[in-house]
Amino acid sequence: MKESSIDSQKITWRKRDGELEYLPDELTIEEPLEIRIGRKTLATTMRTPGHDDELAAGFLVSEAIVRGSREIAGISETRDNVVIVDLAAGVKVKLNSAQRFGTISSSCGLCGKTSIDAIRQNFPAIKSANVRTDIETLLSLPEKLRQAQSDFARTGGIHAAGIFDLNGAPKIVREDIGRHNAVDKAIGRAFLDDQLPLDRHVLLVSGRASFEIVQKALAAGIPIVVAVSAPSTLAVDFARENNQTLIAFLRPPCFNIYSRIERVILA
Amino acid sequence: MKESSIDSQKITWRKRDGELEYLPDELTIEEPLEIRIGRKTLATTMRTPGHDDELAAGFLVSEAIVRGSREIAGISETRDNVVIVDLAAGVKVKLNSAQRFGTISSSCGLCGKTSIDAIRQNFPAIKSANVRTDIETLLSLPEKLRQAQSDFARTGGIHAAGIFDLNGAPKIVREDIGRHNAVDKAIGRAFLDDQLPLDRHVLLVSGRASFEIVQKALAAGIPIVVAVSAPSTLAVDFARENNQTLIAFLRPPCFNIYSRIERVILA
Repeated sequence: MKESSIDSQKITWRKRDGELEYLPDELTIEEPLEIRIGRKTLATTMRTPGHDDELAAGFLVSEAIVRGSREIAGISETRDNVVIVDLAAGVKVKLNSAQRFGTISSSCGLCGKTSIDAIRQNFPAIKSANVRTDIETLLSLPEKLRQAQSDFARTGGIHAAGIFDLNGAPKIVREDIGRHNAVDKAIGRAFLDDQLPLDRHVLLVSGRASFEIVQKALAAGIPIVVAVSAPSTLAVDFARENNQTLIAFLRPPCFNIYSRIERVILA
Repeated sequence: MKESSIDSQKITWRKRDGELEYLPDELTIEEPLEIRIGRKTLATTMRTPGHDDELAAGFLVSEAIVRGSREIAGISETRDNVVIVDLAAGVKVKLNSAQRFGTISSSCGLCGKTSIDAIRQNFPAIKSANVRTDIETLLSLPEKLRQAQSDFARTGGIHAAGIFDLNGAPKIVREDIGRHNAVDKAIGRAFLDDQLPLDRHVLLVSGRASFEIVQKALAAGIPIVVAVSAPSTLAVDFARENNQTLIAFLRPPCFNIYSRIERVILA
């Protein structure tokens, strides 16, 4: 994690004994990032600087705007928080996606009234029935995620997303003040490395599992989604409809399985 | 809090002893809400159903689209997650806001490259210098917020935002799966009741303080913003520039003051 994810500010701290102390505090950097395709602004998101090319790529994958890394000719970053994606010659932004430009939300990933239906059309359900992981592997993931994070992140001030193989080996770990951005960065890295679909991988997020997190995993073909905190109703519904295994409240030795339990080796 | 904020699903729970149990789990409901002005879609947000009129009103206040409740002729809700705001005769959506329609983000509240500048123009900095609260009042707020929440919310599966007076009396408490929505609902309620500006009030949020939270507070004229968790760099910068008092990590008996400490009576 780059140093630029942290900034220090002088604050007044009230201590347990009621005394006040004036000292520096480390804060997670939050800045806007404008994502453009050529000259067209696609979305603006509040993010922690770093890995902006991955964030843009992952966002385009999640929004079903690109499917393969060859569709992107290049990604450039300006100094004033703009990342510009140039599509390869001949690649057109699909009409369905273009229609959704009007209200694309960086954090929610949802765009207009018909977007849930649109996502169902865009991303096929998970097919692989024989992808499995075991309980010991699952229980090992939170500690592995923490170890892969920066010292600062371990204090809990920033979200993390990790992509692991079925044996629990970490492949990509990314951090961001927004959990959706952390997932976009991780998926974007895999996309830029031509690793999609991640159909033999597990996604772990440090926070809650919303609809958007599960949707982004589906965009990357990830069959098993794991969250440290609570899932929403829509996350569970979406996972069930798309044959994704959804596990949440992963707090070793406990966890909850919400869908497709057959991918967890219980014996 | 309405019953409709919760749904129950059967899940498999791995217990501490490794045994598995099949039982119901309570989940926070997450559904999209499309916010329209007349026939024009403004934004779609993922939210917990309930108080949708307040959410729409608070969103319009935060986006500087309306300033007074008389500018809204009516708010109607459809059964399919659409809320329609009808502006009063003669009220035009300001050009600045209209330009930002293209990329309004429900969660981030940020819209286009120049949005931070635009917000500075839209909302005046806090002027009141003699608005103050004391330490005992501050320390009492988290417990008061919890008491005002639903049983379910107290388990931590949902965010809360509370507006308190300077003596710590709770005025409005709202809950939502999205913390920005909880703030929009609380501010929206105050707006619809003609209570803005809330220039003698405190906003407490159950989670982190991002730029957007502090910005929404400024839109409502709130001078003191308090968060249970961490602030971001931009939240601190924004609060300092706009003369807002920002307090975070409020975990009695401790807290951090990031700006405008003179509004806290320290003696």
